[in-house]
Amino acid sequence: MLKYGIDGVLRALAEPTRRSIVERLGAGPATVSGLAEPFDMTIAAVVQHLQVLEGCGLIRTEKLGRVRTCHLVPAGLDPLASWIEARRIRVERNLDRLGRVLDEKYPSNQSKRKKRT
Amino acid sequence: MLKYGIDGVLRALAEPTRRSIVERLGAGPATVSGLAEPFDMTIAAVVQHLQVLEGCGLIRTEKLGRVRTCHLVPAGLDPLASWIEARRIRVERNLDRLGRVLDEKYPSNQSKRKKRT
Repeated sequence: MLKYGIDGVLRALAEPTRRSIVERLGAGPATVSGLAEPFDMTIAAVVQHLQVLEGCGLIRTEKLGRVRTCHLVPAGLDPLASWIEARRIRVERNLDRLGRVLDEKYPSNQSKRKKRT
Repeated sequence: MLKYGIDGVLRALAEPTRRSIVERLGAGPATVSGLAEPFDMTIAAVVQHLQVLEGCGLIRTEKLGRVRTCHLVPAGLDPLASWIEARRIRVERNLDRLGRVLDEKYPSNQSKRKKRT
């Protein structure tokens, strides 16, 4: 069972700044102020983006004293990756089926088609 | 070089109806009116969604006489799949590096850590 759906993940990643934050956190954990600096954003704006990312399971944050550190949760991308993979598998299956139908209908072209793939 | 960026793909897929259309087209081509029916939508509304999907390279459409048929373009999902894969690779690389640093610092725990992976 998936704790988070892909709706939230897609909406979160559709915003370029949030996607950049995910890319940055891929290089390792970062503090909120450390994330705000390169983006030339206020802490408040970064916190809003982080809340969206945390809300859909893409990052987790932990507070130690006054410093909040953010970590990427790579598994948060799994639902989206699975969805993409399912589309590909389905299309490939349809192409295979189409190939078989064509082979039955036009057996003489079978070798030609095989060569092409 | 990618013809379409992932910005458009993410924005297109973040809308549940458009994602359903992509899922439906994964099962095979469909006409615009055929797509409108199960979604209980007007043709105009479907056409708008299709234009977004076509604009970001996820589908292609062709018109024969008065009938427009829509096809999924599975390669349209490639940029997004690559982006997800790049995040995973980067995180794994960081974990490997962390593992090596820990092994150097605490060689006695090396076997224990290896066993866990």
